[in-house]
Amino acid sequence: MKNISINVIPSFPLITKGDDLGEVVLEAASNAALKLEDGDVLVVAQKVVSKAEGRLVKLEDIIPSEEANSLASETEKDPRLVQLIIDESTKVVRKKQGVMIVRHKLGHVGANAGIDQSNIEHSTEGSALLLPVAPDKSARQLKEFFRERCGISIGVVISDSMNRPWRLGTVGEAIGCSGLNVLDDRRGETDMYGRELKITLINQADALASIATLVMGETCEATPVVLIKGLNQKMNSHQTAGDIIRPLEDDLFCD
Amino acid sequence: MKNISINVIPSFPLITKGDDLGEVVLEAASNAALKLEDGDVLVVAQKVVSKAEGRLVKLEDIIPSEEANSLASETEKDPRLVQLIIDESTKVVRKKQGVMIVRHKLGHVGANAGIDQSNIEHSTEGSALLLPVAPDKSARQLKEFFRERCGISIGVVISDSMNRPWRLGTVGEAIGCSGLNVLDDRRGETDMYGRELKITLINQADALASIATLVMGETCEATPVVLIKGLNQKMNSHQTAGDIIRPLEDDLFCD
Repeated sequence: MKNISINVIPSFPLITKGDDLGEVVLEAASNAALKLEDGDVLVVAQKVVSKAEGRLVKLEDIIPSEEANSLASETEKDPRLVQLIIDESTKVVRKKQGVMIVRHKLGHVGANAGIDQSNIEHSTEGSALLLPVAPDKSARQLKEFFRERCGISIGVVISDSMNRPWRLGTVGEAIGCSGLNVLDDRRGETDMYGRELKITLINQADALASIATLVMGETCEATPVVLIKGLNQKMNSHQTAGDIIRPLEDDLFCD
Repeated sequence: MKNISINVIPSFPLITKGDDLGEVVLEAASNAALKLEDGDVLVVAQKVVSKAEGRLVKLEDIIPSEEANSLASETEKDPRLVQLIIDESTKVVRKKQGVMIVRHKLGHVGANAGIDQSNIEHSTEGSALLLPVAPDKSARQLKEFFRERCGISIGVVISDSMNRPWRLGTVGEAIGCSGLNVLDDRRGETDMYGRELKITLINQADALASIATLVMGETCEATPVVLIKGLNQKMNSHQTAGDIIRPLEDDLFCD
């Protein structure tokens, strides 16, 4: 890998439930004279995948449980939002006023179970957007679309912005992957001096999600899809974003 | 920001104590016909900065304290290495067999206080490489070098590979920065639908460190310097990597 380019797909239309993301990406890329090729990686913001999959929930339809009401009062959050957060999670990892850090059912740990209330149309004020039900599957479907439609083998990453312990500022991380060698396992290889490397499992998916999210912008820019070229890898891995989740028994920050 | 390119500087020589990194980068980039320009960001692996600054320590010179011996026996690590780790840290955050997660004096939390034993010459078997004493200052010096020598204003990021809670695989993070708008503060801006954004402090430095580290490779590739073009930003920020550290009183994962 020598040089890679991170290309925003411009003029991406607003996505609503039922849209065929593959078709939309293909058309937007084509309009921008961006050609998808073997070995490219397409990074797609979780938000548009969730919208296409109809993961928008009206808060007025949610009746908070006693547990949700209690947590809401403790964290000073909307009890209906809290209900959604606990429905989407397996565990509350940390909480304080305004903050709920939870382990999502998918295994990812972050604020509010990835539930988003920004960049949702005004007509859906009082709505919340959940993560895709199975983002690895969503990624695989996009990969398959490009294989069938264009005869090319690409990698797909579905990204989300995350806060992290100890460090300020969000970065993009991968919550869905297909084709890409998600965790590049260099263990057993030797370093420049022939010494065996100890810990070198490189998270390619998060690195790509991170730069793509930066280039997308997270505010007004309607550019939720980024095309990465130059990785020079075959995109035939069976790894998924699920493989990123550190096994609980091996995790020192579960409690 | 529309398209950015991540360019490895190839044929980078081995760095030893006292080398002038600015001169070495300039020559290697020039040999590769890579021109540094206003607004570029140079990402430099911590390892070469530490080597240039003479941060290599011989383990045989270290006499472990009682505390180090006790921690070493608990974690099954070399007591001399443990001594270095605790000397470099303010707190042991987590420990178990083979693992010490500490808060480095600089504020960054990670394994072994960033002390590295790979990619160090064979002649220094039994050596360890500490982080630069003041990586923000090292970054500023590099930035100044290019201002004085080439009349250009670039951003500089010093990167290190980090493990993280909950997620497998290392990613690059920024431990030293100069010029770059490290934390891009979009709070107070509105989203596509005019709603005020709640949490949008974007960590540009970590995103750039992350992709640069991926492109560098972490094993045999002797390519510790990466040039990023296309950010379209002025590189005159006074933010540093120190600004990334989440204040302790605001951190839910300090204990």
